[in-house]
Amino acid sequence: MHALISELTELVGESGLVSDAALAERATSYWNSDPTTARALVKPASTQEVSAILKYCHDHDQTVVVQGGLTGVVAGCEASEADVIVSLERMNQIEEIDDIENVATVQAGVILQNLHEALEPKGLLFPLDLGARGSCTVGGNVATNAGGINVLRYGMMRNLVLGLEVVLMDGTVLSSMYPMLKNNTGYDLKQLFIGSEGTLGVVTRIMVRLFPQPTSRQSAMVALDSFDKVMTLLNRLQGELAGTLSAFEVMWQNYYEGVTGEGQHRPPLARDYPFYTIIEAEGFDEANDAARFERLLENAFEDGLVSDAVIAQSERERQDVWIVREEFDPILPAYLYDVSLPIKHMNDYAVELDQRLRSELAGTYPVVFGHIADGNLHIFVLPYKNDEHHHAADQVLYETLAKYGGSVSAEHGIGIEKRAWLSMNRSEDELMLMRNLKQVLDPKHLLNPGRVFA
Amino acid sequence: MHALISELTELVGESGLVSDAALAERATSYWNSDPTTARALVKPASTQEVSAILKYCHDHDQTVVVQGGLTGVVAGCEASEADVIVSLERMNQIEEIDDIENVATVQAGVILQNLHEALEPKGLLFPLDLGARGSCTVGGNVATNAGGINVLRYGMMRNLVLGLEVVLMDGTVLSSMYPMLKNNTGYDLKQLFIGSEGTLGVVTRIMVRLFPQPTSRQSAMVALDSFDKVMTLLNRLQGELAGTLSAFEVMWQNYYEGVTGEGQHRPPLARDYPFYTIIEAEGFDEANDAARFERLLENAFEDGLVSDAVIAQSERERQDVWIVREEFDPILPAYLYDVSLPIKHMNDYAVELDQRLRSELAGTYPVVFGHIADGNLHIFVLPYKNDEHHHAADQVLYETLAKYGGSVSAEHGIGIEKRAWLSMNRSEDELMLMRNLKQVLDPKHLLNPGRVFA
Repeated sequence: MHALISELTELVGESGLVSDAALAERATSYWNSDPTTARALVKPASTQEVSAILKYCHDHDQTVVVQGGLTGVVAGCEASEADVIVSLERMNQIEEIDDIENVATVQAGVILQNLHEALEPKGLLFPLDLGARGSCTVGGNVATNAGGINVLRYGMMRNLVLGLEVVLMDGTVLSSMYPMLKNNTGYDLKQLFIGSEGTLGVVTRIMVRLFPQPTSRQSAMVALDSFDKVMTLLNRLQGELAGTLSAFEVMWQNYYEGVTGEGQHRPPLARDYPFYTIIEAEGFDEANDAARFERLLENAFEDGLVSDAVIAQSERERQDVWIVREEFDPILPAYLYDVSLPIKHMNDYAVELDQRLRSELAGTYPVVFGHIADGNLHIFVLPYKNDEHHHAADQVLYETLAKYGGSVSAEHGIGIEKRAWLSMNRSEDELMLMRNLKQVLDPKHLLNPGRVFA
Repeated sequence: MHALISELTELVGESGLVSDAALAERATSYWNSDPTTARALVKPASTQEVSAILKYCHDHDQTVVVQGGLTGVVAGCEASEADVIVSLERMNQIEEIDDIENVATVQAGVILQNLHEALEPKGLLFPLDLGARGSCTVGGNVATNAGGINVLRYGMMRNLVLGLEVVLMDGTVLSSMYPMLKNNTGYDLKQLFIGSEGTLGVVTRIMVRLFPQPTSRQSAMVALDSFDKVMTLLNRLQGELAGTLSAFEVMWQNYYEGVTGEGQHRPPLARDYPFYTIIEAEGFDEANDAARFERLLENAFEDGLVSDAVIAQSERERQDVWIVREEFDPILPAYLYDVSLPIKHMNDYAVELDQRLRSELAGTYPVVFGHIADGNLHIFVLPYKNDEHHHAADQVLYETLAKYGGSVSAEHGIGIEKRAWLSMNRSEDELMLMRNLKQVLDPKHLLNPGRVFA
């Protein structure tokens, strides 16, 4: 143990190593306030230091857990007493913002919101955005193929990565830092590392695509009386607002009721509609965008699609709309799920899940909302009781999901928490191939051990 | 040989097998009219037949070359006398068009244009589009990660694939036919098969993303007097027309002169400007799109960015603009290149390449055009002489490209023709990892042998 600490200190310096009491002051993760347990935590300041640390650990059969912003929700960053933690927190430099190529080059530890803020004065946008923006890192976004609220328009993280530098467990630095959108030169190796949750390599530097910052934004909350109308409205707006529709978030009634109760968020619309959606469009035609948005919603109202609507007339009113979707503390504690399934099956799934939970686990029920245009639902199951109840809820929820061809993880990944359900979506042959890829890239199984598969 | 033919015939039936004289009637590829040489050509009609063929070949150490539309330009589909050809031409069914999920499920042998035509009456668009649309197949588009003219707005093929079914060389069927945009369940194995040019598995079925068919389209050809102005105009329109700008094609002067000479295409604009661009926007606001497009180009003209412009007022006029870009026969024969590099270096590269070719290979010169917003240039080098001259031109072109951080293949892939240049863009460590992946998926090196790397 002493040898490990002194060797690692040699690699990263005194200020780059955290152990003992200082380490115990850190929480295990955002969701788990227990003190972090690990042999040590190292904070490399460069790709070379990451490489040296991994090579040392590889040579000494030392397991490594990689940490970004700690806000992942599948326990991917939680270390055990046997692990060394590699935290990318000191690799937080935005190296270059190129407004001709529309590319930013960043170190993996850059916090997403810091990148957003650096781009804004230049009229540029990095469109990945999610609730954890203030803590999550761009490297973590790559490792987990993050999704979030703008996938509808800009795609997931995979679609936004142009160049990538990764360090393999044996210390090899694989660098493919090309800023071009098109680069069909052999196998696109970076795809292996996007979304594989740090089990195949440690992301150190990234080139991401930038877009022009929209100059107009329209936001509305809309109430509807059936899920068929929700789907019809979505399809209609995907046409009419194509290229500018940036969010279409849906909340089922009990979600909306739950967050707008007495003393909670102010409800922008009455609380008794079956469905609510938040619609946002971001455009570049300030002179016409607002009027057109309003006209399209009016048409939908006149056609009986929409029961009621409020269009935000100020940033303040926009916040009032979004807080209902983004701050769901009034509902917690609950078991959180993140699934995807065909849009046309979503409401049938929600109804059947509600029936099954109530009948099989008396008093248990789901609260449903999500990014439906991406096929993505988030579900809270309540009440929050204990592990046994949690597992029973998992069983009902995923079994019902399987009937509708759903996926057990839309954007959160597998981590440790969802391993048991991976085989619902991936065949034995697929799992075998995943293991074979792991074997090629980390034959000693030292990197983020036990993530994705045991 | 006889055993091979009779065994394969048993797997696919008489009508599924082509050999001897019938085989020799087929050309080697679109670009090579020599008779096809191969032991046999099989035309499986189902995934099960593909699996049975590959398993048989695997068990008998028989090399296999996979064929789609034969229009690839790096000799990826050209078989040798020792190979069995697997042609996907009978797997040409569009299985489902789902206008709620906006997903089409197709067999790999569906011709791209047939998919376009099936979608149009439903108001849907599959946005991948390229010159070979009438012959290339969706499976080939996946295998090569095809690009084309709409990448600027919709991304490359990788970005359009939701679900994928692949048969491995040993006959294993890997099926991940999920229609959801978000599906972070373990490693995203389909990414391995997209763009790996059929060397890791045979694509059999695909679920692709669909988009609403735009209801308005504006097309213009614009002349500019410097490349700086081309870049400025591109950046400006990427903002002003964001979400609707679908093409921004650039032609250097000698390209434009070359295709609009005496007896060739009619020049939409005078022939003496240094740069020409074709700009296209596809929108959904018929009432306003045309006027706005015209206003934005007028502004660019008034600001001195644009020297001259013509906006197409009819489909006929639009064709007159596009034919200049799409039908470049007047320039041929020539050596064709497909490279990518940072936009800001493109003109310096073009100028330096022109100087070097003229001085090092007397009388040799480049003709440059391309999808510059994607970082992609196509280059013809003339005159067309012989292999020795071709190789000398390769040397000058790629050496000069390396100085500017360019990629030897933007969208065409590596195939057989570009293998020698792959190491310019990929490190020894990257090439080693590619070989290791090949080893995992095709340990006997039977599938599309010699493609990507020897």
